[in-house]
Amino acid sequence: MINTSILKLEISKNRSKKSGLPAGSLIHIGHKKVKETNISLIDYGKDSHTEQTIKRISQCFPYKDDRTITWINIDGLHDVRIMEELGTCFGFHPLTLEDVLNTDQRPKLEDFGDYIYIVLKMIELDKNTGEISIEQVSIIFGKNFLVSFQEQPLDIYIPLRNRLRDSKSAIRKEGSDFLAYQLIDLIVDNYFKVLEYIGERIEKIENKLVLNPTQKTLKAIHGLKREMLFIRKSVWPLREVISNMERGHFLLIKKPTGLYIRDIYDHTIQIIDTVEIYRDMLSGMVEIYLSSMSNKLNEIMKVLTIFASIFIPITFIASMFGMNFKYMPELDWRWSYPAVWAVMIGIGVFLILYFKRKKWF
Amino acid sequence: MINTSILKLEISKNRSKKSGLPAGSLIHIGHKKVKETNISLIDYGKDSHTEQTIKRISQCFPYKDDRTITWINIDGLHDVRIMEELGTCFGFHPLTLEDVLNTDQRPKLEDFGDYIYIVLKMIELDKNTGEISIEQVSIIFGKNFLVSFQEQPLDIYIPLRNRLRDSKSAIRKEGSDFLAYQLIDLIVDNYFKVLEYIGERIEKIENKLVLNPTQKTLKAIHGLKREMLFIRKSVWPLREVISNMERGHFLLIKKPTGLYIRDIYDHTIQIIDTVEIYRDMLSGMVEIYLSSMSNKLNEIMKVLTIFASIFIPITFIASMFGMNFKYMPELDWRWSYPAVWAVMIGIGVFLILYFKRKKWF
Amino acid sequence: MINTSILKLEISKNRSKKSGLPAGSLIHIGHKKVKETNISLIDYGKDSHTEQTIKRISQCFPYKDDRTITWINIDGLHDVRIMEELGTCFGFHPLTLEDVLNTDQRPKLEDFGDYIYIVLKMIELDKNTGEISIEQVSIIFGKNFLVSFQEQPLDIYIPLRNRLRDSKSAIRKEGSDFLAYQLIDLIVDNYFKVLEYIGERIEKIENKLVLNPTQKTLKAIHGLKREMLFIRKSVWPLREVISNMERGHFLLIKKPTGLYIRDIYDHTIQIIDTVEIYRDMLSGMVEIYLSSMSNKLNEIMKVLTIFASIFIPITFIASMFGMNFKYMPELDWRWSYPAVWAVMIGIGVFLILYFKRKKWF
Amino acid sequence: MINTSILKLEISKNRSKKSGLPAGSLIHIGHKKVKETNISLIDYGKDSHTEQTIKRISQCFPYKDDRTITWINIDGLHDVRIMEELGTCFGFHPLTLEDVLNTDQRPKLEDFGDYIYIVLKMIELDKNTGEISIEQVSIIFGKNFLVSFQEQPLDIYIPLRNRLRDSKSAIRKEGSDFLAYQLIDLIVDNYFKVLEYIGERIEKIENKLVLNPTQKTLKAIHGLKREMLFIRKSVWPLREVISNMERGHFLLIKKPTGLYIRDIYDHTIQIIDTVEIYRDMLSGMVEIYLSSMSNKLNEIMKVLTIFASIFIPITFIASMFGMNFKYMPELDWRWSYPAVWAVMIGIGVFLILYFKRKKWF
Amino acid sequence: MINTSILKLEISKNRSKKSGLPAGSLIHIGHKKVKETNISLIDYGKDSHTEQTIKRISQCFPYKDDRTITWINIDGLHDVRIMEELGTCFGFHPLTLEDVLNTDQRPKLEDFGDYIYIVLKMIELDKNTGEISIEQVSIIFGKNFLVSFQEQPLDIYIPLRNRLRDSKSAIRKEGSDFLAYQLIDLIVDNYFKVLEYIGERIEKIENKLVLNPTQKTLKAIHGLKREMLFIRKSVWPLREVISNMERGHFLLIKKPTGLYIRDIYDHTIQIIDTVEIYRDMLSGMVEIYLSSMSNKLNEIMKVLTIFASIFIPITFIASMFGMNFKYMPELDWRWSYPAVWAVMIGIGVFLILYFKRKKWF
Repeated sequence: MINTSILKLEISKNRSKKSGLPAGSLIHIGHKKVKETNISLIDYGKDSHTEQTIKRISQCFPYKDDRTITWINIDGLHDVRIMEELGTCFGFHPLTLEDVLNTDQRPKLEDFGDYIYIVLKMIELDKNTGEISIEQVSIIFGKNFLVSFQEQPLDIYIPLRNRLRDSKSAIRKEGSDFLAYQLIDLIVDNYFKVLEYIGERIEKIENKLVLNPTQKTLKAIHGLKREMLFIRKSVWPLREVISNMERGHFLLIKKPTGLYIRDIYDHTIQIIDTVEIYRDMLSGMVEIYLSSMSNKLNEIMKVLTIFASIFIPITFIASMFGMNFKYMPELDWRWSYPAVWAVMIGIGVFLILYFKRKKWF
Repeated sequence: MINTSILKLEISKNRSKKSGLPAGSLIHIGHKKVKETNISLIDYGKDSHTEQTIKRISQCFPYKDDRTITWINIDGLHDVRIMEELGTCFGFHPLTLEDVLNTDQRPKLEDFGDYIYIVLKMIELDKNTGEISIEQVSIIFGKNFLVSFQEQPLDIYIPLRNRLRDSKSAIRKEGSDFLAYQLIDLIVDNYFKVLEYIGERIEKIENKLVLNPTQKTLKAIHGLKREMLFIRKSVWPLREVISNMERGHFLLIKKPTGLYIRDIYDHTIQIIDTVEIYRDMLSGMVEIYLSSMSNKLNEIMKVLTIFASIFIPITFIASMFGMNFKYMPELDWRWSYPAVWAVMIGIGVFLILYFKRKKWF
Repeated sequence: MINTSILKLEISKNRSKKSGLPAGSLIHIGHKKVKETNISLIDYGKDSHTEQTIKRISQCFPYKDDRTITWINIDGLHDVRIMEELGTCFGFHPLTLEDVLNTDQRPKLEDFGDYIYIVLKMIELDKNTGEISIEQVSIIFGKNFLVSFQEQPLDIYIPLRNRLRDSKSAIRKEGSDFLAYQLIDLIVDNYFKVLEYIGERIEKIENKLVLNPTQKTLKAIHGLKREMLFIRKSVWPLREVISNMERGHFLLIKKPTGLYIRDIYDHTIQIIDTVEIYRDMLSGMVEIYLSSMSNKLNEIMKVLTIFASIFIPITFIASMFGMNFKYMPELDWRWSYPAVWAVMIGIGVFLILYFKRKKWF
Repeated sequence: MINTSILKLEISKNRSKKSGLPAGSLIHIGHKKVKETNISLIDYGKDSHTEQTIKRISQCFPYKDDRTITWINIDGLHDVRIMEELGTCFGFHPLTLEDVLNTDQRPKLEDFGDYIYIVLKMIELDKNTGEISIEQVSIIFGKNFLVSFQEQPLDIYIPLRNRLRDSKSAIRKEGSDFLAYQLIDLIVDNYFKVLEYIGERIEKIENKLVLNPTQKTLKAIHGLKREMLFIRKSVWPLREVISNMERGHFLLIKKPTGLYIRDIYDHTIQIIDTVEIYRDMLSGMVEIYLSSMSNKLNEIMKVLTIFASIFIPITFIASMFGMNFKYMPELDWRWSYPAVWAVMIGIGVFLILYFKRKKWF
Repeated sequence: MINTSILKLEISKNRSKKSGLPAGSLIHIGHKKVKETNISLIDYGKDSHTEQTIKRISQCFPYKDDRTITWINIDGLHDVRIMEELGTCFGFHPLTLEDVLNTDQRPKLEDFGDYIYIVLKMIELDKNTGEISIEQVSIIFGKNFLVSFQEQPLDIYIPLRNRLRDSKSAIRKEGSDFLAYQLIDLIVDNYFKVLEYIGERIEKIENKLVLNPTQKTLKAIHGLKREMLFIRKSVWPLREVISNMERGHFLLIKKPTGLYIRDIYDHTIQIIDTVEIYRDMLSGMVEIYLSSMSNKLNEIMKVLTIFASIFIPITFIASMFGMNFKYMPELDWRWSYPAVWAVMIGIGVFLILYFKRKKWF
């Protein structure tokens, strides 16, 4: 089932923390998902590769101005001091830092000349509980650096890190825009995994719908419908961001990288198509559910009507001859009793045939 | 529950007051929410700050032409005379004043060269009753002044006033466009608070929907749906207004302020997204309600059918042997009575098993 | 209730009259709502004002070429001869005259250089019957004249005529484009009155929906829904017309008038918004109606089920002991009868508690 | 009811005939509605008028290059040879001829420089059966000729032919573009007739809906809904075609004709509006139908519940005293019997009052 | 019924294979539908025609640079080595090859200067099972070559191959763009065949809907609805592709071919129209199904109510006189028994007439 806290997470109390404060104030609006902020630094070029975990931003300074690409990855956003240092060091606009700390952003791309700031939403799936949650990823990249921010470490970066270690890997020869492309690609690919999982769940629910639909089935359908709402909400602006990257003539994105970005763009379109198809399918499933409800009611009513319609008339006959009138000549006749039986069976058979012809059973 | 008078307030009798009058006639179309019109004046600059409540417009004149920013805030619109004086003093177009007095406006932005006129709708939430109401805020700002109008004092201005008093505050260094941005930001932020509250109400209703849905629950859902209609009606044109401010090349809005306005623009998009998601969720809730209605009906009918189907046949048997025919040999048999009991219990058990296999209980 | 003839009026037999005739043939397609065509003429300028009812078009000639504004108002369109004279006198295009006579037009604006031709739909409300009907108003205005056509006299013109008599009135100083603006403003304002009335009716129906919804309530809702369809059909093209007037660079519409027209444009947007909100509200009311139907059914079924489920079993017990078997030892026992009573009451109480726990009553 | 073969006609077997053939192959895809292809020729100018039925295309040649307008009308498309001759004579592109023969086209306009090719759909109504069918009309016109094609003779051309015979008629002075306008006008006018007829049918069904809705009524509604789908499918592209003619700067369409075409454009918009309104009305009627179904069910259940709830309890009482226990002291009391009657009547009256208060009858 | 694996096929496990790999890696994502990759080569020109099945890509080299058109058709995509050779030989971009191998593409067109790459979806219908499946077709064409890829041999190419063998065929004189047009035309035509088949199925289901709708009928309707979703998903981007080909000024597509492509464009529009109409029809059928469900329920309830309402009251009367009170004077009256019969028949007749007047049967 969907993490019901998504709703709250999306528009809830977090906002209030900030209201009334001047614009540009650095406050972390989100969840403190890790105890300590972890900063890892990878510096690579055609022929070099350094990887280290650092404690203070100042450790990044030596890598800042060399010609190799520096990728600083920050897990945990609650340490405002680190953000400030980073901002001063790389010359980020206060609004950029404010947006990084506010995990309540809509995916967007902003070009500040020296660097491009991208906000994305990653969808994470907890395979055990089936819950999905949304993690905001901020990417800032300039000529030869890229800084990525999220509230907790992401597994999807692992294969990328391995590839960076491999000196034969194509990525080692490319610039920071290609690294940004790689990160976005990983995040977009992750949507497919979640949709795949949801597709399986839809199929399971569909089977239940055929066998024995209950109120719970309906709620599961509505749970998935709601998940679709949230995925859609994060993937539509994502499409815009990537479309912008493809068409927009940003100096920081080189022409050949554009070709690769067009590829991710196609993927986002496919995600959107799939989400829409799932939504239509789920609506159809609600329809089937409702109709199977009324179908069941019809079945129940048929049973009742058949029983009642057969036994009520013949019970009436029986009670007729249970009357205590003195002058009821039939009572004394020899064949009355069997005759009554015959009449009753006749009525019963007639009604059963009647209902059979009506295709009631 | 929604203030049911919103509907009337929006398009109702107020209008009629004016019909037939020549254009440009100053008449207050709205509610007289305060007894007296209160005018407060704040004049501030990098190094100066004056704050005073004034009685007559003429008291503003000295501040009008100095280089510091003058913010005149007017609570209460029913005093037409004050409006006229103000209009003459600052040179407002008659149509502007007419629109300020008519609280029945759609959010819009109009550039008159010397000043920009902005109409916004603020959504107010009465925490006690849960009612929301809509308050129209008009903002007129020129090179070094800003006049804001509403029918009653707004609490959301308080933190802003405090910030203005603080000489270290960034806002003291900025122009009137930045002050306008601050006011709009406060109003937009307020939407989030209301949506947050509505989000909580949706969750509460959802819980009721699971436990024991009643006709009242449905009405609550429809009440929220209607609130969404009204919020949507005021936020869509708001988005246009802000988008205009961002893109439009207004001389009175400086470049750096544009960056901040882009920020509010993102917020309005998020409000719209949230409203749409809420609407979809509420529609889903109606579906669940209706299906739980028919579910309940099925439950009721099952109970009836089980009772009727079991007892009607065996009652028939009993009434058979209540008949008074003379020649009913079974009546005299020794084991007839226990046999009848056995048959009845047999029928009962059989039917119970039958319904059990049909998963009726 | 809606004038059910609207439907017919809109697309019906009228058309057929004309089919097969060459384009430009003058035929009145509509209703002859008044016996005689009434022509009134008002000629006004800054310092002069003449008002008279005329019988023949030739009486207008003297006013045609003077510099004062001449407003000719024609009520009743069935006198084709008058139209022809008018057309020749003012030099109207045959297609213009044809369109004036055909009350089956979509609101539109056509610029013929010498004059602008505007078709509008006015919505009239019969307060007694609650019926609304649609009246087509055609306005043709040139440099110093304006001709308005409708099938019957309109009350909404009265205040305008009074204002024209007043030499201090602003309108006396303006041109024919301002007069056209005034007429359109009156017609648009009238929409608000009708919507106001419909708003009240919606509220009344809503109350009925809460208290005791009947099939009639549903039909009333659908009647209003249909009225909304017709209002929408006439207000959408109206919006286009006015938007055209505002943006279009028509020589005959002066710049300052444009500002006023922007005002009417805002009003049409508001009308459209209101119509859409009403439509959404009415759809919600249908939903509530349907759900209260199924709610009622549930109530009915509960009553039936409670009665049947309690009495059917105990009636069975009673009929058991009504059997006439010889060997029924219980019949002779002293406490059988009270015991049976006890068992029956026990069953009844148990079932009542059972239904109570199920929250059936 | 709708010609159920429309569906098949639209997308069915016809297509398959052609699949696999090279483009440009002339094959008639449609119905052979007349035995023989009829070709009629009208040649007219300001002062001349010739009308004749011809057997071979070569008979047209003398008229081809004179300055008078030549209108060749062809009823029946199955004679491919005639088409080939015609194509060679007038220099039509092979794709044009292919499209003429394929009655499975979407309305469109194609400008080939020397001539303009227009495909339209005419809706025909069989007044006896109420069936509507769709007839494809192709119009090709060049500088001084026009060729029109359809599968069977159309009555709507008759008044036009008469007008052409009249030497005073305006059309005699105009070019081939005006003749094309006239044909399109006739076809568009025909839509109104069909809509008028459908409007009447909607009204009839609506009356039935009020009096005694049956499953048949619903099917009639859905039949009309489907007709609307087909009319909409042919009128939307028609609108595009006519809009193209109006705005597009085609050399073959003269400026003054453009004014008349704008008129037809308005008509198509009105047709579309009407179709949309009808669709909305029909949807509303389905809603009313469904609600009246559940209303009826409620009525039925009320009857059942009232009967059952009154008689089941009192029958129980009666069967109590039908028990054969020895010790039932009431049986011997003098006033037992009347007392039982009194109790029963009491229960009955109480329940009737109870149901009355619940407004069940 | 629809191939339920479409869903999985579309977005499922296949993707996962690739996630984490660097872009440009050649991996076949799809189904290995044939054992061995079959490559056929047709080289043709105005006067020459060669056809052969080849084993190795190197066999193509001699044909590559001559001036005749070379069509290489590849069935089966799992042999990555062949793809690599081909790519090197013709100079395809790595992303192109990657996309060819990934059968999970959205239809698209990409211009790489030297060649144009088109992805299409073909819909295949298994006439025996009624299942539809989707086959991805990739077409790459340059100045004088065209390569087509699919996972299994397609029958629709057979007539085209025959036509190429015929030296008089028009296609022999045209370039590779015309061959591409022919392939796309075949694929688009195939959509019509599938829609034709679905149209027939809709009709069959409609008949069942009239005679005896069951839950199975509803599921069949939803199956078709879902097929429509998938067809729509592949035909909308197809439309874009073809629209691009028509308008886009690609050097590789000659002007006269553009005319033919406009023809296919019309076809895709028609397919979309038909899909939309089918969707609307299927929705209407769901409505009819649901209403016939509630209709049936009403029928059932009428039967029950008529039986119960007639027999319950008269059974009550019978049980009255089955009571054993001592003092029941009626019991001893001579005409009591026939009187009771008369009363009962009277009640029965009255109720039957009552229900008849209510039109219950």
